[in-house]
Amino acid sequence: MTAHDVPIPVAVLGPTGYTGLELLELLARHPGFRITYLGSSRQSPPRIDAEFPRLRGRLGDADPQCRPIDHDAISRTARLAFLCLPHEAAMTHTPELLARGVRVVDLSAAYRLRDPELYARVYAHPHTDPQGLKRAVYGLTELFRAEVAGASLVANPGCYPTACTLALTPLLSQRLIEPGSIIINAASGVSGAGREPKAHTTLVEAGENYSAYGIGVHRHQPEILQTLRGVEPKTNLLFVPHLLPIERGILETIYAVPAPDVESRDLMSALSRAYAGERFISVREDAPTLRDVQRTNMVHLNARVVSGRAVIVAAVDNLTKGASGQAIQNANVMFGLNEAEGLL
Amino acid sequence: MTAHDVPIPVAVLGPTGYTGLELLELLARHPGFRITYLGSSRQSPPRIDAEFPRLRGRLGDADPQCRPIDHDAISRTARLAFLCLPHEAAMTHTPELLARGVRVVDLSAAYRLRDPELYARVYAHPHTDPQGLKRAVYGLTELFRAEVAGASLVANPGCYPTACTLALTPLLSQRLIEPGSIIINAASGVSGAGREPKAHTTLVEAGENYSAYGIGVHRHQPEILQTLRGVEPKTNLLFVPHLLPIERGILETIYAVPAPDVESRDLMSALSRAYAGERFISVREDAPTLRDVQRTNMVHLNARVVSGRAVIVAAVDNLTKGASGQAIQNANVMFGLNEAEGLL
Amino acid sequence: MTAHDVPIPVAVLGPTGYTGLELLELLARHPGFRITYLGSSRQSPPRIDAEFPRLRGRLGDADPQCRPIDHDAISRTARLAFLCLPHEAAMTHTPELLARGVRVVDLSAAYRLRDPELYARVYAHPHTDPQGLKRAVYGLTELFRAEVAGASLVANPGCYPTACTLALTPLLSQRLIEPGSIIINAASGVSGAGREPKAHTTLVEAGENYSAYGIGVHRHQPEILQTLRGVEPKTNLLFVPHLLPIERGILETIYAVPAPDVESRDLMSALSRAYAGERFISVREDAPTLRDVQRTNMVHLNARVVSGRAVIVAAVDNLTKGASGQAIQNANVMFGLNEAEGLL
Amino acid sequence: MTAHDVPIPVAVLGPTGYTGLELLELLARHPGFRITYLGSSRQSPPRIDAEFPRLRGRLGDADPQCRPIDHDAISRTARLAFLCLPHEAAMTHTPELLARGVRVVDLSAAYRLRDPELYARVYAHPHTDPQGLKRAVYGLTELFRAEVAGASLVANPGCYPTACTLALTPLLSQRLIEPGSIIINAASGVSGAGREPKAHTTLVEAGENYSAYGIGVHRHQPEILQTLRGVEPKTNLLFVPHLLPIERGILETIYAVPAPDVESRDLMSALSRAYAGERFISVREDAPTLRDVQRTNMVHLNARVVSGRAVIVAAVDNLTKGASGQAIQNANVMFGLNEAEGLL
Repeated sequence: MTAHDVPIPVAVLGPTGYTGLELLELLARHPGFRITYLGSSRQSPPRIDAEFPRLRGRLGDADPQCRPIDHDAISRTARLAFLCLPHEAAMTHTPELLARGVRVVDLSAAYRLRDPELYARVYAHPHTDPQGLKRAVYGLTELFRAEVAGASLVANPGCYPTACTLALTPLLSQRLIEPGSIIINAASGVSGAGREPKAHTTLVEAGENYSAYGIGVHRHQPEILQTLRGVEPKTNLLFVPHLLPIERGILETIYAVPAPDVESRDLMSALSRAYAGERFISVREDAPTLRDVQRTNMVHLNARVVSGRAVIVAAVDNLTKGASGQAIQNANVMFGLNEAEGLL
Repeated sequence: MTAHDVPIPVAVLGPTGYTGLELLELLARHPGFRITYLGSSRQSPPRIDAEFPRLRGRLGDADPQCRPIDHDAISRTARLAFLCLPHEAAMTHTPELLARGVRVVDLSAAYRLRDPELYARVYAHPHTDPQGLKRAVYGLTELFRAEVAGASLVANPGCYPTACTLALTPLLSQRLIEPGSIIINAASGVSGAGREPKAHTTLVEAGENYSAYGIGVHRHQPEILQTLRGVEPKTNLLFVPHLLPIERGILETIYAVPAPDVESRDLMSALSRAYAGERFISVREDAPTLRDVQRTNMVHLNARVVSGRAVIVAAVDNLTKGASGQAIQNANVMFGLNEAEGLL
Repeated sequence: MTAHDVPIPVAVLGPTGYTGLELLELLARHPGFRITYLGSSRQSPPRIDAEFPRLRGRLGDADPQCRPIDHDAISRTARLAFLCLPHEAAMTHTPELLARGVRVVDLSAAYRLRDPELYARVYAHPHTDPQGLKRAVYGLTELFRAEVAGASLVANPGCYPTACTLALTPLLSQRLIEPGSIIINAASGVSGAGREPKAHTTLVEAGENYSAYGIGVHRHQPEILQTLRGVEPKTNLLFVPHLLPIERGILETIYAVPAPDVESRDLMSALSRAYAGERFISVREDAPTLRDVQRTNMVHLNARVVSGRAVIVAAVDNLTKGASGQAIQNANVMFGLNEAEGLL
Repeated sequence: MTAHDVPIPVAVLGPTGYTGLELLELLARHPGFRITYLGSSRQSPPRIDAEFPRLRGRLGDADPQCRPIDHDAISRTARLAFLCLPHEAAMTHTPELLARGVRVVDLSAAYRLRDPELYARVYAHPHTDPQGLKRAVYGLTELFRAEVAGASLVANPGCYPTACTLALTPLLSQRLIEPGSIIINAASGVSGAGREPKAHTTLVEAGENYSAYGIGVHRHQPEILQTLRGVEPKTNLLFVPHLLPIERGILETIYAVPAPDVESRDLMSALSRAYAGERFISVREDAPTLRDVQRTNMVHLNARVVSGRAVIVAAVDNLTKGASGQAIQNANVMFGLNEAEGLL
């Protein structure tokens, strides 16, 4: 915490999913924020510690009872709202909250793609708040810190895009790889599929299993492209996600054709220089494992050239740096707190 | 196979659950049976190898297309039907099949409890085929082999009851333990909860987790009691199941007060004598693990007296000996095949 | 933190095991302590963030380089040492540290059993510091808080004893259960077996598996008895641990004969009253799961009478409340900090 | 079985590892082979059902007692030996067995690479049986069936090479992909690392984890290249294996640049035509999961063109089709049995 003596009051809307749970656990130990409102769109808003018994007795002074999402009530008690809601609900509530002076960190995909037409194609429903889109800042903190600081609306990045965008931005900006040659072979834990039970997410189906899905057609592909084309317009890529038989974590093995004469040390030094001083990025000589980053807000990066290919490995926790941890990192920046507060 | 040169034609009704899948995999390599009918009660009966891609190309001559459950059609093509259906459906179809001369091995609980009143209390719906109940033989093969051989309707035992009933029967019949002192601490893999996705069976909830459920009120408790009271009428017990974060397997740690002067070797020799010559029961000096029995039709048993308590450990695979393997074992007995045929 | 403005300097000896890793992660975010010394008995003390890459960049100002265990050097820089060492090493270093004015929280079993003869039998080597034994306070914080506060040497309890001792103490002291009838059916994650690879702890052997071990002869049985006989001298029990196919967590299903006329509500109200006001104990109406307590310092308790038996379920994380979390809880008490500091 | 009325006697040397266990389970239910010799190089050869209690009572007439590896004794009792030994031991025993008229299926890497110089570089020890190398047939059954039939020595392929070689051979031979553009992103279960406990294979380290290893330098890369360059000499590739937190299964996601105008249906029809009539290869419209092939001898293949890339997904079980299943498939071919005997 910096000079702030009084914790900043925040609301969490949609706390009954996995990003909500992760956010509450992180906020509960954050000295700079206090939870003043839990808003649920369920018919009967639950007590959050009945929904997640692991929160019993761990929320400090916060009222564990969820309430309906009432914009006026939220604006009276909170200066910031974290939205862990479905995309459509996020587009409904965000303008109401902003209009009442409540800043928003939105963890859905609602404000990630700048082009509402593209959004409509990718998410298969129209964008209902194109005005909000214009105000939204893409909250990949390390790349857009200055914009986040002044933002009223932060679009928290997707879990997959967080890892590869951080890995590839320095390499593209330094022209160390051919921008049209990128293949992102990604793998994620099952929590990325949300909390709703599905046929393919039961333990019997997902456990001891592994598979590719959404080959080349995953919704995170345009999100990744949007940011990387801001770095290098000729960027093109194929994104292939896989489902891992674990709860959490994302590891991406990224392939590209290196630019002429580029060697491993060129890739590594580009990453090291780009992220020198970053608290949450660790550039390392060996390839990371998921265990190295689970339940932390860290991104571990490694890169090399082998057999004529650049191979970059990036690891994050999909629920922490890939969602709720980065949401808090953004909130810390928005309110002038120490960026790492509550995230160690 | 014995003298049977022609495989016996069988139907599998309800093959789209986990006991159905297990049964099909076992039947596919069984030289004495051939699958002639797959019957599904779904609106649009699926191809079974689309439902379970692991069956692609592995069903031999069997037609992978499921059909509606048509009793006449079944009776024209099959001499035996395995029912992997819900309890209510089993009670509907069984009398129709029997009336048409098709013998039945029912894997549901419909015909396990002899008393229809008890059934109605335990399963919370009335028993609609009390006539069938009278014909049904409880198919714990090692204990009721002779009855099974002549049965037209076999009630295949529950997964939990299979392990502990085999473990306790010799000890009770030899009066080696106090019949009112039994505690069965059981643990099962998630496949025991069926294939339908549920909030508590997703990988994120069930994985890396473990919990007790149905403490003292599980539906298998009366089934266990029914058989054991046939051995020793004063039997009383507490059954406490737990959910393991794995696909399959049941391990039961059973506690009882030993009769005076009973030692470990008394327990062990009672088990060894009772099951000498049994192909599927292994009495061993050390406690079994689940890995020792998974995907086999075996029951592993160990017993000892320690700190004044008898401790018996029994392990089975809930889908094999605890369901589909035992169903085939019973079918082998019913048709005079080698009891172990197709089960090695 | 209370009035302490300056964090208290602490040493961690033996940080390369799992309790060491857990301790470092907890200390890294604890505002009241700072790590000033990492001591390893390895020939070449490693950098701890090379040993555990997940610690990269997450230890704040602490030097990640482990050093030899030098008592003088430790005493110059630390007021408290956490010992995550083998039992024998703990008995060697503890008197040296105490003699130099460094308080000790010992996470080994060296000082848990008060009787050195019993220790020698249970751990199969002589106790080399019987003087230390006399000073040691058993650090089950909720039960011995006052003694812990003034202690120079705290014996941090075993993981299994923590759960059942807290569960049974109020029931025995209120005479709600028969003291000679207790059976503790316990199950633990694999991290309880330590970090050294063993034949039975590989993923292929331990994964998708489950088994009983050390039936009635586990070393934690005398530790549990020692504390419970302090409550009720007639206590007797059988302790049967099982190995779960997961990383962490302990769930104990405890059986006992209830005293005459005792009902579920009597058990529950005894627990609730005993632990009213405790930050880390949650008495709940339904049975806990491991997921409810993993990576928290909480103990979840539930009790009921069913089928004539008392059944109590207790859940903890073996590395947190069962080891390093409780170590910090004890250290908080020893130094007059908020007992929950750094543990939320 | 074909006309063979008497099962062929076989030896298994090195049955105490995971390929040995898998082989024994498959042989136990194979009507065409019977196990007459278990040979172990351990100082004290164990009973195999003590080493693997899941084999208790499941080996039929076979003697479960392992014996020293005695070439004369083996030759008196067995016509074929399966070698599940380390590479060096395989090179020692193979010529002795061949000299005595015992045919060999070697599951080690000893005879996979035809060039002894290359072998020495890749495996870091000299090849001690270059004569044997000349006789050895590479046992990727579907591609080299005719040679296998007449072979006295079959080098059973590596687990990783089995999947991708079958996937890529038709595409390269039909010139549907650019031969220098291949990237094989592979993932395997932990059993691929052998049975010996290692720091990175414990449940705590490997469980809930995932990582890349041996990036571009894995020993299977030259094995894959050797076969594919036999199809298309210009083939070049990068092979990147990953470790999955599961027991078994290999899934490979393969990327290549398609030849001009090549579409998904071209890839699919090339695969379908190449493997029409193959019992163990299933070409399918959707991408396979590991669960679809685990504990089967099947290879599931899917291919498509998306975002300008060919993406091929291949799945096998590393212990079955990737090792012991294929070993039996080869033995079936060598002895003129039905190729699928014992493998359904």
